[in-house]
Amino acid sequence: MTNILVCYYSKSGTTEKMAEEIARGIEESENDVSADLKQVSDVDVSKLIDYDGLILGSPTYYGLPAAEIKKLLDESITHHGKLEWVVGGAFASSANPAGGNETTVLALLESLLIHGMIIKGMPKGDHYGPVAIGDPDDRELKQCRYYGRFLADLTDRVSKWNLKK
Amino acid sequence: MTNILVCYYSKSGTTEKMAEEIARGIEESENDVSADLKQVSDVDVSKLIDYDGLILGSPTYYGLPAAEIKKLLDESITHHGKLEWVVGGAFASSANPAGGNETTVLALLESLLIHGMIIKGMPKGDHYGPVAIGDPDDRELKQCRYYGRFLADLTDRVSKWNLKK
Amino acid sequence: MTNILVCYYSKSGTTEKMAEEIARGIEESENDVSADLKQVSDVDVSKLIDYDGLILGSPTYYGLPAAEIKKLLDESITHHGKLEWVVGGAFASSANPAGGNETTVLALLESLLIHGMIIKGMPKGDHYGPVAIGDPDDRELKQCRYYGRFLADLTDRVSKWNLKK
Amino acid sequence: MTNILVCYYSKSGTTEKMAEEIARGIEESENDVSADLKQVSDVDVSKLIDYDGLILGSPTYYGLPAAEIKKLLDESITHHGKLEWVVGGAFASSANPAGGNETTVLALLESLLIHGMIIKGMPKGDHYGPVAIGDPDDRELKQCRYYGRFLADLTDRVSKWNLKK
Repeated sequence: MTNILVCYYSKSGTTEKMAEEIARGIEESENDVSADLKQVSDVDVSKLIDYDGLILGSPTYYGLPAAEIKKLLDESITHHGKLEWVVGGAFASSANPAGGNETTVLALLESLLIHGMIIKGMPKGDHYGPVAIGDPDDRELKQCRYYGRFLADLTDRVSKWNLKK
Repeated sequence: MTNILVCYYSKSGTTEKMAEEIARGIEESENDVSADLKQVSDVDVSKLIDYDGLILGSPTYYGLPAAEIKKLLDESITHHGKLEWVVGGAFASSANPAGGNETTVLALLESLLIHGMIIKGMPKGDHYGPVAIGDPDDRELKQCRYYGRFLADLTDRVSKWNLKK
Repeated sequence: MTNILVCYYSKSGTTEKMAEEIARGIEESENDVSADLKQVSDVDVSKLIDYDGLILGSPTYYGLPAAEIKKLLDESITHHGKLEWVVGGAFASSANPAGGNETTVLALLESLLIHGMIIKGMPKGDHYGPVAIGDPDDRELKQCRYYGRFLADLTDRVSKWNLKK
Repeated sequence: MTNILVCYYSKSGTTEKMAEEIARGIEESENDVSADLKQVSDVDVSKLIDYDGLILGSPTYYGLPAAEIKKLLDESITHHGKLEWVVGGAFASSANPAGGNETTVLALLESLLIHGMIIKGMPKGDHYGPVAIGDPDDRELKQCRYYGRFLADLTDRVSKWNLKK
């Protein structure tokens, strides 16, 4: 079965709400895809290779993901090359519009590209990945849900290629 | 007298409104700083070296500045090295939040850094440079005005170093 | 048949050499994939929707793609939404190491993500897309060839999903 | 006396060599500027406000600075607003050309801009900040030395404005 890890860091609960909505979107995909929703502190880096998709979320701290998320990425070097062809995605929350949320999402995507992952943008809405300004409103939550759904579809297709073996 | 060029491309008028407000902010600086407000099509690239500051604005087209602005930057290579120590700034408009406006501002700042310009961020609000989503609202216009004012102050100080000669 | 457009701008011939090598890599893929190699001035924007993959290359001008490439991207808005699920890629040449080539590649990838395209990084070598410093050496040309080959494989698989219709 | 902190994280010693050369460049400035050279683990975040300049260096881990450096930036939020007008700079080492070193430097600069710091690019060489590929060669070390020298001059001038008070 296709399995996606939604891994996030959240202090105020904003990023967690987004993560939950993305997981919901994944679960409601027409394909047989399940979501594992985890705080970054609960993620065992050695299990990353068990997933077909990896979606990372973080609050915006100085235009970049929180150190806790970066630490996971740094540790993932022990699996370098083994995460190629995994589908990757990213999301971020911030206090302000133009407060560094796009650069946070792109920083995460850059890391996932270096693992050799597959990334997809969105022609509508938040192009690089979902973003929330403060407590997520309806539009933002819808965006998260949609992102989960389409990444589930993408991951399901890619996982059938059996390229990770 | 310290002189700043506010150069923009605008189709719908949104970026123009932002440019006007930035110019207003410059003019109301306590220092003796004037603003030249120009559409990019009216800018003579050979005059760029006459300015102490250069602020570029563009709508967000595919996460980057419009080709018209990029063309000016490409042509400015004839003055490469001569724009060092000029103060640089950037602003952008976009249809959507997280629609590529931060990456547009950063793209412009990257170009200005390669000219050796001096850049400053803002600890409050739109950190990299002002951004408007759709028709600029009060908060966004205030941000532009504030940006103009503090870049005027910065440019006034830097221009007194007489480094360009 | 799966078809990839390799579209580039080149003045000194460096980016052209890279483009040729990427096209060679595409053609030598085990799958039935062909490459269309074109200077950006020869590309008809209305034909973009005929391709399953789009790889853009440019020299590094002020840390970003040349205005000629940006113009094509700006004009492609007439097909916005219709290029979703196309596979995208990017490459760049520059005079210096750390001369803005990574930011040029990323700028192109950002634009392609906004079209909703699928992007993949490389766990080895030039992670975001191939880069050459000055006249491309053997390592750099090999990198281009490898990039063409693996993007051909990716595009072949994705094109079988028939998602563009 | 004008004082610049060169703060780095280094495992293999590459980034440390760069940091030492930047500090050397600072010390040989014609102005009265001193450099504090410190591993990030030895930096007390509450002392950041005592410096007129802050130059951060890191190896490239997944296209971004190491988590150790990011942690310092996250903790620096306790001084948000108080680091405005400080001069900022960044440098990075990586195993490969186009291995994510430019994105590492830019990630650091983005963070420093959000603190409201002043940044300057270089019209020659490594435009955004010095980069080394593997063990730094002569050109790369010279670049670091030059960067230290010109940031010392910039910091000396800016510190005389007495804006931090």
